[in-house]
Amino acid sequence: MSWGTIPAPAVPCQRSCALVTVGATTTTGGMTLVSAGTVGLPGIALLSFAHPHQRGWASLFQASGRVHVACAWDADQARGEAAAATLDVPFSADLDAVLGRDDVQAVTICSTNDTHADLAVAAAQAGKDIMMQKPMATTLVDCDRIVAAVETADVRYYQSHNLRFDPVHQEIKRLVAGGELGRIASARRRHSHAFALLQPEVLDWMRDPGHGGGGAFMDEGAHVALWFLWMFGPPEAVTGFVTTSLTEQQSGVEDGGTLLYRYASGMIGVHQSSWAELASTSTVEISGDRAVIIATGTDITAARSMSSDEPPLRVWRHNPSGPAVGPGPVPPDQPNPAGHWDDPQVALPRSRLQGTAEAFIQMLLEGTPSPADARTARTAVEMVLAGYQSSREGRTVTLPLRR
Amino acid sequence: MSWGTIPAPAVPCQRSCALVTVGATTTTGGMTLVSAGTVGLPGIALLSFAHPHQRGWASLFQASGRVHVACAWDADQARGEAAAATLDVPFSADLDAVLGRDDVQAVTICSTNDTHADLAVAAAQAGKDIMMQKPMATTLVDCDRIVAAVETADVRYYQSHNLRFDPVHQEIKRLVAGGELGRIASARRRHSHAFALLQPEVLDWMRDPGHGGGGAFMDEGAHVALWFLWMFGPPEAVTGFVTTSLTEQQSGVEDGGTLLYRYASGMIGVHQSSWAELASTSTVEISGDRAVIIATGTDITAARSMSSDEPPLRVWRHNPSGPAVGPGPVPPDQPNPAGHWDDPQVALPRSRLQGTAEAFIQMLLEGTPSPADARTARTAVEMVLAGYQSSREGRTVTLPLRR
Repeated sequence: MSWGTIPAPAVPCQRSCALVTVGATTTTGGMTLVSAGTVGLPGIALLSFAHPHQRGWASLFQASGRVHVACAWDADQARGEAAAATLDVPFSADLDAVLGRDDVQAVTICSTNDTHADLAVAAAQAGKDIMMQKPMATTLVDCDRIVAAVETADVRYYQSHNLRFDPVHQEIKRLVAGGELGRIASARRRHSHAFALLQPEVLDWMRDPGHGGGGAFMDEGAHVALWFLWMFGPPEAVTGFVTTSLTEQQSGVEDGGTLLYRYASGMIGVHQSSWAELASTSTVEISGDRAVIIATGTDITAARSMSSDEPPLRVWRHNPSGPAVGPGPVPPDQPNPAGHWDDPQVALPRSRLQGTAEAFIQMLLEGTPSPADARTARTAVEMVLAGYQSSREGRTVTLPLRR
Repeated sequence: MSWGTIPAPAVPCQRSCALVTVGATTTTGGMTLVSAGTVGLPGIALLSFAHPHQRGWASLFQASGRVHVACAWDADQARGEAAAATLDVPFSADLDAVLGRDDVQAVTICSTNDTHADLAVAAAQAGKDIMMQKPMATTLVDCDRIVAAVETADVRYYQSHNLRFDPVHQEIKRLVAGGELGRIASARRRHSHAFALLQPEVLDWMRDPGHGGGGAFMDEGAHVALWFLWMFGPPEAVTGFVTTSLTEQQSGVEDGGTLLYRYASGMIGVHQSSWAELASTSTVEISGDRAVIIATGTDITAARSMSSDEPPLRVWRHNPSGPAVGPGPVPPDQPNPAGHWDDPQVALPRSRLQGTAEAFIQMLLEGTPSPADARTARTAVEMVLAGYQSSREGRTVTLPLRR
């Protein structure tokens, strides 16, 4: 479960409905085909609605008018038929038939985490590009099956990565990559929601270790691992504690915790994720020797407790000729000799699904590289698994993990 | 080095000077005695000015008019004489003579960390109460020597603990102890300054592993360990990374890092300390299932980058009948159905030394229990040493540590 699931992105219904109803509709072998109006657009097959992002993505694909949602499949036929009906997309219970369609160029996989690999391998072997809900898979064995299948078939793999398309994070990336922080000592990323406390049924199969493969870190935390990889590359070691402190969960399912990522530079990444955090005033804190970044509102926990007049991003610009301590709290109308806070004019996105769906459309249409390819997705899973192993075995775990 | 060192607390000079100059002054055996005006007040001997807090404490003792700063000693005679002169206090280079004085009831120890134990043991054996600069000592062997000497001699030991006397922290303690947060999942305490970057000479001997016994965690971090003990009691395990990422330091001296404290309840404490953090917007973040606390301004890093119109303490009060996600950022003039932020009317202290000095005066005059006794001080050192061991050995370290 992650940001953007609720409320669903605002998609103008007229447009999405119009898209799939243009032209004549025929029925073949139990599948409804839209034969005109979408001809020539890359076709996408929706594989499973277990994760609710599938509906959000599909609506955005339809609204784009640039790709064609060709059909849907789900191992749970009732769920699949119901979801397909709301999207006005033909449903098939026959996966081989779906993957055999020539008008399907790509698939989007939102099954339970434990079945990601089977579906991805089948899709790759059928020559389909893949957009995958996070996490890639729940074991390194499964991740490696996907990597091998994708690379052997030479299809493209896109690990959906909502956080990358948040303008706040993009500005942070620009500042970090541009060296505006100087050398960086620490980067904290807190990313959470509160569904386990407030609406646990939303977590559904994600609370089942057999399907979810973990708890808050395999779910929310997978976003953050991708964020760290995007922002700083892979760490060299992981330690931390995952626990279940506020809610009842099955064994192997944590409702929160904190992992630490040690980087070769000496930088320490602090990754806090939870299914049970009600409020916060920050999601990002990055401390360098020239500037410090604070961001907020980029997870459900911060957004639900935020006022719209708060800047989502603040950058402390150090004054090298200022005092070591500073005068202490300074009246807002007076300059602080220690430095000053910039509030870059960036806004939180209205929907985090929009950017990730757009990126996949662009990949399909323009052949742009995947913003998060299969090997990156594998490393993100590796970081989470290393955290689990560290917490379980009571030791620091170095990367790469041994399988 | 810690908060309150610079700028020095504002002490009205007339009063402190008046206190020690009332009455006739005599000289005996090289020591100047103030024979009247302070008669009957508990006498305090200042042992070493290696840590600059000694001057701050002494000024506050003098300003109080309730205790008598009887004399000063320092292993560095030039430093001791100079400091004693500015305080208008007699200096002696003879430790035995100082500890043998009947008019000395207590000592305050601000020597280099490696000599805390020798001085404390000598003071205890001479029957003197002790106020100790943090950390208690740099090894458990030394801590145990102090604990044994204090308990054998039945003298009182007070581990100076500035953070405990910050009204913001006292309100947090009240909220936590009163159960207003409900069950607590995580407690983050960031406590830092930037001297290693901006004015490294201030760190002086603290950067020397032989004298300081570590880096940012043995120094700034010792405050935080005491804070966790006060707020939540002792953790059961520690893991983390300490590093030197932004400044050059000798081996065994870290300029920052993060330690994690695992509590039996499942709560995770996150302890970030640094000698090289320029700015921040929070020092405390505690997440419970009924409320969340955010505080700022309670370390040098946050205070130097803070505006005086920011509330130092905010409490998110959860609305149990509100939505799981909430509407997202809410205009400031509209109610948020998910909950609301309280800003308790507490102010940052003008000086953090004042409260800790007052507590010692009260102990001496009224026989009140030590707010942080020798065994508590030992556990705080144990937490830091466990963090160092974890970082060095790459494993989670359970408490109590084996010596």
